[in-house]
Amino acid sequence: MNMRPTLQMIQNAAVVLRDVARQTPVLPFGRLDNHLFVKAENLQNTGSFKIRGAYNKLRSLTEEEASKGVIACSAGNHAQGVAFSAMRLGMHAVICMPDYAPTVKVEGTRGYGAEVVLVPGNYDDSAREADRLSAGKGYTFAHPFNDPFVIAGQGTIGLEILSQMPDVQQIVVPVGGGGLISGVAIAVKSLRPDIRVIGVQTMNVPSMYASFGFGEVETLQDRTTIADGIHVLTPGDMTFEIVEAYVDDIVTVRESEIETAIVQLLEGPKLMVEGAGATGVAAYLFDRIDTSLQTVAVASGGNVDMSTLEWILTRELKRRA
Amino acid sequence: MNMRPTLQMIQNAAVVLRDVARQTPVLPFGRLDNHLFVKAENLQNTGSFKIRGAYNKLRSLTEEEASKGVIACSAGNHAQGVAFSAMRLGMHAVICMPDYAPTVKVEGTRGYGAEVVLVPGNYDDSAREADRLSAGKGYTFAHPFNDPFVIAGQGTIGLEILSQMPDVQQIVVPVGGGGLISGVAIAVKSLRPDIRVIGVQTMNVPSMYASFGFGEVETLQDRTTIADGIHVLTPGDMTFEIVEAYVDDIVTVRESEIETAIVQLLEGPKLMVEGAGATGVAAYLFDRIDTSLQTVAVASGGNVDMSTLEWILTRELKRRA
Repeated sequence: MNMRPTLQMIQNAAVVLRDVARQTPVLPFGRLDNHLFVKAENLQNTGSFKIRGAYNKLRSLTEEEASKGVIACSAGNHAQGVAFSAMRLGMHAVICMPDYAPTVKVEGTRGYGAEVVLVPGNYDDSAREADRLSAGKGYTFAHPFNDPFVIAGQGTIGLEILSQMPDVQQIVVPVGGGGLISGVAIAVKSLRPDIRVIGVQTMNVPSMYASFGFGEVETLQDRTTIADGIHVLTPGDMTFEIVEAYVDDIVTVRESEIETAIVQLLEGPKLMVEGAGATGVAAYLFDRIDTSLQTVAVASGGNVDMSTLEWILTRELKRRA
Repeated sequence: MNMRPTLQMIQNAAVVLRDVARQTPVLPFGRLDNHLFVKAENLQNTGSFKIRGAYNKLRSLTEEEASKGVIACSAGNHAQGVAFSAMRLGMHAVICMPDYAPTVKVEGTRGYGAEVVLVPGNYDDSAREADRLSAGKGYTFAHPFNDPFVIAGQGTIGLEILSQMPDVQQIVVPVGGGGLISGVAIAVKSLRPDIRVIGVQTMNVPSMYASFGFGEVETLQDRTTIADGIHVLTPGDMTFEIVEAYVDDIVTVRESEIETAIVQLLEGPKLMVEGAGATGVAAYLFDRIDTSLQTVAVASGGNVDMSTLEWILTRELKRRA
């Protein structure tokens, strides 16, 4: 295993990110005082938290590495994070994206000046293509989660939550590959071990949930999910070890529950949150976690195609009728 | 005419509101640096800016007035602002609402503990009923816009914009009765007369636009609009005088342009903004104002029924197809 991220690396990342990542607000979910708050990373530059880890990673490269450029593989938010960061740092960026990636994320990535390679097949096919290009052209590979600098960047969210809401008792974090929860858990448990850190996955792709339960990294069969941002079949080995060491529990939510949370986030705090980002709120609304605790759910991103949102609304309104 | 609101009253209101109204963020509209920013008052407590004026008004009452209670008349956001403020201050609140008010706003108002009286007919019918109840029971009437304390409360948005974005060159403000733009214009023009202050109305109900053009208060025939928050047929006399004195221009936007702005606010800054709140962005997107200036559009609120949003999305996606 590589160098393991530390609290010190996260504190350094907070300095590196000062002019690049916004300190997003923590907003109450409901109209009146209840126990649920939302860390609105959908309001982050590029529409998701991924810019934190991506920029911190790119800033860690040597001059020689930086001059050759970077490559990444992502269905969307990490792609935009890397593309935006490369643009800010004047680096060349190539992004391999599976051809099912949401249009809004593909266009966002191109909009930041990255070279996008759309790869037929699933995420693993894109990863193989990225490996091939990386080896051939000397690009540095920016892994979406299994990297200490990426994890340290994501961990800055944990520091912000502690300073924005010192009386928080529980933090709920969407989990795909595990980079976000790894960083948040290291930051929070190092400074405030009394605070519970809970991961959430969709029932359709519960790869970290299964690995956490079995005690080793598991690879799942593929299934579709509305939460494309956490559609990862195999968690990282680094992130898995950190989750085992620091995270209190992993829970799962249904796809329909994620849709309900998306719509309630529009109605309550007036936030457009994507499927992955709404899982923490879903876990609270559907009692998968202790709702008596002061809870912050990390709304990790907001990049949704409007045609998908229309379909989510139609389904949710039918459920209510 | 009543006492006219001043910069000093607005600065006092900022102190009064410190623990009640959130300093909402100013967020870039687009992914890359452009000239449009959004003052996200949809993220305000109660989902709109109205709490600022309502709370400032209720705090200005004498003990005797406060003990008798308050009454207001509103299709929604002012209703919620008064109800929330009365709850915080332990006052009794009665709200007359036209029976076409969006469900989300009626339920919000009741949720804050106010007594809601649904009145058949239009806003004027509700206002008459509020007058009748006010006279009979000694309630203080909290006008939604034509009141110096209400205007002063709304003006705190102007102070915040100046401190959050000192290089702003133009501020675009939705206009219904004119309370919000009156407060913002007094604050901004008193401190920074170089900054342009522009009002926006829907073409379907351009009452301040017509009054501004003709030089006297006009009353329009009623038409429907998706921007229920600025559905006012007659501007206030106090607000009209302030607009004449301080505001650079009033422009209008089409209903379809408001819908496009609502959807682009979901896609870009990931904000759920209601029709009235999206008019400023619409004015920018459809070139009704100088788009070369650093512009802040006040997104005044976010209270939309989800069935209305579904319909807006369907129409907008058809326009794009």
